[in-house]
Amino acid sequence: MVKKVLKFGGTSVGTTERIQHVANIIKKEQSSGNKVIAVVSAMAGKTNELIELSTKISDNFDKRELDVLLSSGEQVTCALLSAALIRLNVKAKSWLNWQIPILTDGEHSNARIINMNIEKINNFLDDRGVAIIPGFQGISKNGDITTIGRGGSDATAVAVAKMFNADTCEIYTDVDGVYSTDPNKIPVAKKIDKISYDEMLELSSLGAKVMQSSAVQTAMMYDIPLEVRSTFSDRKGTKIFSHENIDYTKSVTGVAYSKDDAKITIIGVEDRPGVAANIFEPLSKSQINVDMVIQNISSDQKTTDITFTVKRADVLKTKQILNKNNKINYKNIIQKENVAKISIVGAGMVSTPGVTYRMFRALSDENINILAISTSEIKLSVIIDEENTLKAIKKLHTIFDLD
Amino acid sequence: MVKKVLKFGGTSVGTTERIQHVANIIKKEQSSGNKVIAVVSAMAGKTNELIELSTKISDNFDKRELDVLLSSGEQVTCALLSAALIRLNVKAKSWLNWQIPILTDGEHSNARIINMNIEKINNFLDDRGVAIIPGFQGISKNGDITTIGRGGSDATAVAVAKMFNADTCEIYTDVDGVYSTDPNKIPVAKKIDKISYDEMLELSSLGAKVMQSSAVQTAMMYDIPLEVRSTFSDRKGTKIFSHENIDYTKSVTGVAYSKDDAKITIIGVEDRPGVAANIFEPLSKSQINVDMVIQNISSDQKTTDITFTVKRADVLKTKQILNKNNKINYKNIIQKENVAKISIVGAGMVSTPGVTYRMFRALSDENINILAISTSEIKLSVIIDEENTLKAIKKLHTIFDLD
Repeated sequence: MVKKVLKFGGTSVGTTERIQHVANIIKKEQSSGNKVIAVVSAMAGKTNELIELSTKISDNFDKRELDVLLSSGEQVTCALLSAALIRLNVKAKSWLNWQIPILTDGEHSNARIINMNIEKINNFLDDRGVAIIPGFQGISKNGDITTIGRGGSDATAVAVAKMFNADTCEIYTDVDGVYSTDPNKIPVAKKIDKISYDEMLELSSLGAKVMQSSAVQTAMMYDIPLEVRSTFSDRKGTKIFSHENIDYTKSVTGVAYSKDDAKITIIGVEDRPGVAANIFEPLSKSQINVDMVIQNISSDQKTTDITFTVKRADVLKTKQILNKNNKINYKNIIQKENVAKISIVGAGMVSTPGVTYRMFRALSDENINILAISTSEIKLSVIIDEENTLKAIKKLHTIFDLD
Repeated sequence: MVKKVLKFGGTSVGTTERIQHVANIIKKEQSSGNKVIAVVSAMAGKTNELIELSTKISDNFDKRELDVLLSSGEQVTCALLSAALIRLNVKAKSWLNWQIPILTDGEHSNARIINMNIEKINNFLDDRGVAIIPGFQGISKNGDITTIGRGGSDATAVAVAKMFNADTCEIYTDVDGVYSTDPNKIPVAKKIDKISYDEMLELSSLGAKVMQSSAVQTAMMYDIPLEVRSTFSDRKGTKIFSHENIDYTKSVTGVAYSKDDAKITIIGVEDRPGVAANIFEPLSKSQINVDMVIQNISSDQKTTDITFTVKRADVLKTKQILNKNNKINYKNIIQKENVAKISIVGAGMVSTPGVTYRMFRALSDENINILAISTSEIKLSVIIDEENTLKAIKKLHTIFDLD
């Protein structure tokens, strides 16, 4: 008997019709003899509606009470889905955060799940019952409601899969899997059947918003097989597991891009130890997320140039912080907005020589200038002019046999 | 130091602006040195919205899950009100049904409160904190969420006042008190400053929908002083307590009426023991609420006529049940729809002779025919043609010095 955690996101339970559809999916799983725990999000739009109410009360809404407020959204979905299952003659029951309980650690709105009681629910599953659990929430040791950050239902699903020792965790969403690149931009984009956790992480962090990164990380850490699939079609989704389960026939698995980047270069910085720390510490303290960092030797060999990328919205703030920073000396700051980061991701890259060269050659063939380069074990990113984004993705998608 | 329970109904917390207004009322009470526990309803319209969702899932929605669904409404208000108070620099905290906990007995959607833990909240009050509690709900001994019936927030407020030994329980609503008759129909209707529990009960059951009857009953049983007052004005409301606290200067406190009544007469029923039981048992089993019952001796002295009133919507069903009833013999059934019940209510009636006579004379002066009469210790009701309702109320209001 297979034990499955099925997670249904906000659009999957966005209307009562959809909730009834989800009930049918669960009934089918249960009728096939599987033990099912469903983790649900709030109905699409519901969380934003509650947040809007909160901002009307205060722009500094108390964090404990915000968690009380927001957690009600998933509670509603739990009740509706359980009743929909009962109507289909499936034994089902909602288990709220405090009824399980799901214990969390850390601060309000950003807690993390540390434990949950599995005995009662396991008995219920043994008894052919389907347990419905609200995502995104738990309780603290003090018995306060806590939430685990927006989109945290994925994290709940993976934590549930881990605690209940489930065989698989299926993320039902509004896309039918992970694609080799953005299918809305590149029509020849292909659904990936199997992908490793770390490739998925690279793709997620590069803008493929299919699953929460922290949830993928947890799944990787505990080796919990994931599957991302569509609530609205019967098609197979994308399976996510460790490298060993994947037979790499291609060096590159996908091409990702991120928008809204900007590039900043500090020219003529003194080339001595500690200078990078002096530059980036104040940025980090101001919550500015620095992405790629590249350091070149400068022409005079006593100074160096440091280039990094930040989100476009942070450019002004970044420059203000650099200007105020009296721990660093430099000649000039140059900025370039309207850049894009294009990345090829693939666990097969490690064992395939020449991938880097082929990427640079392909971009050069298209007359695309590379403004910065950054590499990791399974990823190769370049910064290019934003206007070349589409052209670059198409070319890379083709030359790495992804069409 | 006075300990107060303040209850705010759905319209009082119907928008975020109103919730902020309620926070100001509470802040004022707390600044005057009072200990405050607030009991809140769901925002106006919210419960109906959730019920509508439930009917879209199933017309036989599971009762346990319905309570999970509906209880989320008050949870939202609790969080919003607590945060609104914190914004005003008032120490405040929401305490949900399971956090207190509020223990209930009985079935889902119709449970009753049997106990609650007061220690933690009392400590919080001692510490100058305001506790916000959701009305209408609790948990069962099994740890399931239960609700105590619609409008049950009044019952929660009174139960909280009892358990916490509060000095007073104030029901904030959208009217500014209890009136001598319906102020929308009779402009000279006057707000009653003080009224006894039993008068209030008679008026409530007669259609003055200011407070839930069962909540008034509980307050009477434990002698908890109530006050009904408006959230939207500073005017004093109506105080409700026991007879001893009221100096009766008038024999009649108020004139009430109920609409949608119908009168049914069974003519020529055998006059023998058990016949009334045989008539009314099947009606009761079909949830038909029989109000007044009058029995007259018939002309032939072997049979009798039985007259009773039911809600107009139940007339057809009532006749069907009577027709199918083979335990009774009768000559005929007459029905009269379009009747109204007019009642005068007053604890002073007991000690004032001639009230009955004055009522009948007044109606006769207006040429209003009395179709049935029923009396109790503090109430006198008559059934009349519906078209005479307004004329009757006006006349009675005047002759009993209520204008």
